[in-house]
Amino acid sequence: MSDFKILSQLNSPEDLRKLPDEELPELCSEIREKLIEVVSVNGGHLASNLGVVELTVALHKNFKTPYDSIVWDVGHQSYTHKMLTGRFDKIDTIRKKGGLSGFPKRSESKYDEFNAGHSSTSISAGLGISEAKRIKGDKSYTVSVIGDASFTGGMSLEGFNNAGRYAKRFIVVLNDNKMSITKNVGAFAKYLTKVRVNPWYLRLKNKLERIFLKIPLLGSLALKVIQRSTRNVKRMAYKNTIFENFGFTYFGPIDGHNIEDMSNAFEAAKKVNGPVLVHVVTKKGKGYEYAEKDPKTFHGINKFNIETGESPQSKESFSSVFGEYMCDIAQNDRRICGITAAMGPGVGLDKFAELYKERFFDVGIAEQHAVTFAGGLSAKGMVPVFAVYSTFLQRAYDQLLHDVAMQKLHVVIGIDRAGIVGDDGETHQGVFDVSMLNSFPNTTIYSPCYFEGLKKALNQAVYHTDSLVAVRYPRGGELYRPKDYTEVSVDFDFYGDLSSDTLIVTYGRLFSNCCKALEILKEKGKKICILKLNRIKPLPLDAVKASMKFKKIYFYEEGMYNGSIACSFNSELSELDYKGNLKIIAIDDKFVTHQTVNEALKELHFDSESIAKEILEDK
Amino acid sequence: MSDFKILSQLNSPEDLRKLPDEELPELCSEIREKLIEVVSVNGGHLASNLGVVELTVALHKNFKTPYDSIVWDVGHQSYTHKMLTGRFDKIDTIRKKGGLSGFPKRSESKYDEFNAGHSSTSISAGLGISEAKRIKGDKSYTVSVIGDASFTGGMSLEGFNNAGRYAKRFIVVLNDNKMSITKNVGAFAKYLTKVRVNPWYLRLKNKLERIFLKIPLLGSLALKVIQRSTRNVKRMAYKNTIFENFGFTYFGPIDGHNIEDMSNAFEAAKKVNGPVLVHVVTKKGKGYEYAEKDPKTFHGINKFNIETGESPQSKESFSSVFGEYMCDIAQNDRRICGITAAMGPGVGLDKFAELYKERFFDVGIAEQHAVTFAGGLSAKGMVPVFAVYSTFLQRAYDQLLHDVAMQKLHVVIGIDRAGIVGDDGETHQGVFDVSMLNSFPNTTIYSPCYFEGLKKALNQAVYHTDSLVAVRYPRGGELYRPKDYTEVSVDFDFYGDLSSDTLIVTYGRLFSNCCKALEILKEKGKKICILKLNRIKPLPLDAVKASMKFKKIYFYEEGMYNGSIACSFNSELSELDYKGNLKIIAIDDKFVTHQTVNEALKELHFDSESIAKEILEDK
Repeated sequence: MSDFKILSQLNSPEDLRKLPDEELPELCSEIREKLIEVVSVNGGHLASNLGVVELTVALHKNFKTPYDSIVWDVGHQSYTHKMLTGRFDKIDTIRKKGGLSGFPKRSESKYDEFNAGHSSTSISAGLGISEAKRIKGDKSYTVSVIGDASFTGGMSLEGFNNAGRYAKRFIVVLNDNKMSITKNVGAFAKYLTKVRVNPWYLRLKNKLERIFLKIPLLGSLALKVIQRSTRNVKRMAYKNTIFENFGFTYFGPIDGHNIEDMSNAFEAAKKVNGPVLVHVVTKKGKGYEYAEKDPKTFHGINKFNIETGESPQSKESFSSVFGEYMCDIAQNDRRICGITAAMGPGVGLDKFAELYKERFFDVGIAEQHAVTFAGGLSAKGMVPVFAVYSTFLQRAYDQLLHDVAMQKLHVVIGIDRAGIVGDDGETHQGVFDVSMLNSFPNTTIYSPCYFEGLKKALNQAVYHTDSLVAVRYPRGGELYRPKDYTEVSVDFDFYGDLSSDTLIVTYGRLFSNCCKALEILKEKGKKICILKLNRIKPLPLDAVKASMKFKKIYFYEEGMYNGSIACSFNSELSELDYKGNLKIIAIDDKFVTHQTVNEALKELHFDSESIAKEILEDK
Repeated sequence: MSDFKILSQLNSPEDLRKLPDEELPELCSEIREKLIEVVSVNGGHLASNLGVVELTVALHKNFKTPYDSIVWDVGHQSYTHKMLTGRFDKIDTIRKKGGLSGFPKRSESKYDEFNAGHSSTSISAGLGISEAKRIKGDKSYTVSVIGDASFTGGMSLEGFNNAGRYAKRFIVVLNDNKMSITKNVGAFAKYLTKVRVNPWYLRLKNKLERIFLKIPLLGSLALKVIQRSTRNVKRMAYKNTIFENFGFTYFGPIDGHNIEDMSNAFEAAKKVNGPVLVHVVTKKGKGYEYAEKDPKTFHGINKFNIETGESPQSKESFSSVFGEYMCDIAQNDRRICGITAAMGPGVGLDKFAELYKERFFDVGIAEQHAVTFAGGLSAKGMVPVFAVYSTFLQRAYDQLLHDVAMQKLHVVIGIDRAGIVGDDGETHQGVFDVSMLNSFPNTTIYSPCYFEGLKKALNQAVYHTDSLVAVRYPRGGELYRPKDYTEVSVDFDFYGDLSSDTLIVTYGRLFSNCCKALEILKEKGKKICILKLNRIKPLPLDAVKASMKFKKIYFYEEGMYNGSIACSFNSELSELDYKGNLKIIAIDDKFVTHQTVNEALKELHFDSESIAKEILEDK
């Protein structure tokens, strides 16, 4: 194992800028070794980080950070950046409770200019930073680093369109690795292939120049043409990419693993009086054989064995059960369409994608489009099912409301990673989808707790519900289930001692923890009842009415307090003039930082011990 | 006045398709006359409708609607479409309660393929429709009609990127009128100007061809080059627009007021084996002198005098007060930036735009970008204020949460048109912003009722609040205010009889109606108290505590029930073990259709009579 001779000596990018060029390859080796080491232990984003080692070094070498600003898109590729900006000694804590975040975070370092986690924000944020500098007369540069897959997210293009008209000292680095988590899709991806490989216009320009130079006979006429056309020919050669049409000066394609080439490009970019796009081609997973071969698996990965590249096999999960169900119904129902926004394997749709290619749509990182596109499919009789992580569905708020619910189009959303997701932290927690959808008319939400319940809820959503309907389920595998509990209704169930005066109301994953709490309490002589909601919107009024008889009600909800089902439930109780006491335990107006799922649940008092304690101690 | 000889005979587009071509100009005249007539009485979108008369006729003439599908973007330009699809006899009811909607609506007609209202949805929706047809083996065409300003909204580009790779029988008509409501902005707008006026590549191609044809001396060598380059030259000539780079075949620019030219283009487009973009150039306001001269004013207009083009002067409004305040503080505070998403005059920022050009940003129809861009400005010490209609802020849900609130960036949102907006109907009601923001951590919301309160709240937001802060205010002018009411606190005030056992809690515009109700009740011998909230998030807990003494509380809220401040207020009361009764009157899980503001408030029982009645009759 290396002692990270160079890396451990770099306390700031200033130190990096003093390093002789010939030591940079060794530095990059050390960085790669450390990346592999730390991700193999902590889990995290490996392939994307391995891909940008040289790029990150070149950026900090050529731009005077933190005077100049680097804005990372998504930010899962910022590990090298963290190591080079005074955080090498803390890199082993990455993604651990209390340790470094797996994403850029302003509160962590002055070198982290803008928080990230979701895709396609860096151009807009970078442009804001750049314009603030203009107003203040600050002459430093702003560099936004964005992947080719993030580039086609709608906001990127909005930002690009705005930047192109006035930004100065603003450089977009397009990190082109041909990938989102899976292979990048869409017309733009195809276009980049052309630009990357062999730009036809450069070829043509060279040809024309050769001809005109070789043949004196052409004489005045032809020369006149080419001279008068010089601007046009130049335009043809250099003003011909999409980027240039949007007002950017284009440099590229440049080898993203060659620090010298990138340095030249960055220095040239600094001299341009307007926005510049530097197109850098990198290889995801670069330098680690297993990751190069399988960047999809090594995009985000749990701990793994460095020698074999093997990670503990993931067992059956809510995502895989969702995927199986989708394949099952698609076989006999030709209306079923599966949609993903660049997360096919993550949401369990990989098998569906193979079997039902004609009805599978990976739309790229484009959640807004995914939802309205689903609306279009539905308008002509299809039954689209869009599977998406809770946190990314936030991008499609207006589309769900304005394009689907408002015209009662039957669109099913499979909300994966609902609730706490763990070490990715606050940018990825799935704790807003319920409050988001709860206020939408014409909308139904199911939040089952077990695999069996997930299938039932999906069936209800696909075959027995109209308009917008969401089925949400947590990250991970099957949850603890008491032997004597049976799911009876697809709407709600009571479990435990119905004669008790104490009721817990809950839904989704927390039901499992509440059942464990029930057992703890039983051992201590306290009997309670649990109301497990499955359909959380519209609220089953029978369940509310049946709750009236309990003197004390605790509502446990793995989501935000304001906008919660708990608040709606409470208001329904008030409507019925309930005179007992209801206490809501939800996430109270704060973001939940990175830590394991269990640590977070404990911090939020959602673990079985905390639940039992709350009920025992409460008066 | 015309008797609409031709128009009144058209019961369906089938009738239009039978009309001899020479009658079409007369038809277009009749349509224009009717458009001007009806909008002069009902108010509505005039300039955009006048601009697409010939385009709409050409579409229905060349596409077999409803077998072929037309999807309108935004949809405020669909009046001609409505007249030509069997709704001429109802056009006088447009935007009136119970009448035609001012936007396409599936429930209204089979010719309205997809509801619209917000911008940039038509490509995604059209692609969904087109793909559903492919799966079903339906060979009909799908045409999405989108304006140049809508085209740069993020979702359009997401849709375009997806369409470009596989869509068939899918045609995008780019209706290029150089305008959003105001002049269109951004690099793409600049780019269109070039394409529109005099495409350099066509000029170059013509030149090269002329040379090579005229000079035999060039002989074999040059010919060889040009022949071998044919594909390249063709590409240069025809494969050179942004649209083609995205995989579309491009036809244009075409005169959008010449039905024959458009017909030729549409027929050619039908023959292409892949997605096509037809670039049509139109003039907003075409055919009505006042609207041509001032399309901004005639975009959306109240009733006006046809002869003079004059509309009743709009008096001082919440928007204008907001704009004045912005100018006031910007003078002495160089950190203040004003941002709009193509709604400068609507939100009252036109004067600010003139006075503080350097700090004014019209980002085009790009709410996502607007918010994250504001985040970037704030990260470098500016104080950005983004003024936006409540309904359009829905587009930026994730950006507000992930890019602003999560990293506690100080960004101020001026939420205009909060609450019921009237005749634009359900797509434009501002009734979701509160439930949307209520669940966000690190977020403050003010909802004042009067001009004075608006200024105070803005001041609080700009100078005494951190992180994300929204100030929301209704459409229209100053509201009724009792003489003996004085605003004391920026957080909350009590008004009325504090010794009463009945309390109304409310905020924003409804306070005014509640005051009127108080007077009605006083006349009937019933004294009540009103708690007027100004800061609605975080809830002032002192206000909640002070409410405990009232036996009966009514919470009136001009927003959705679920996720409401009322529900949060109720839960805080429960936390304090309140034993009285709280009744929430909010918008209960439904969309509010088009009608005047007052009609809608009455329908929702938010008018003073209904409020008084509720309190008198309730037990």
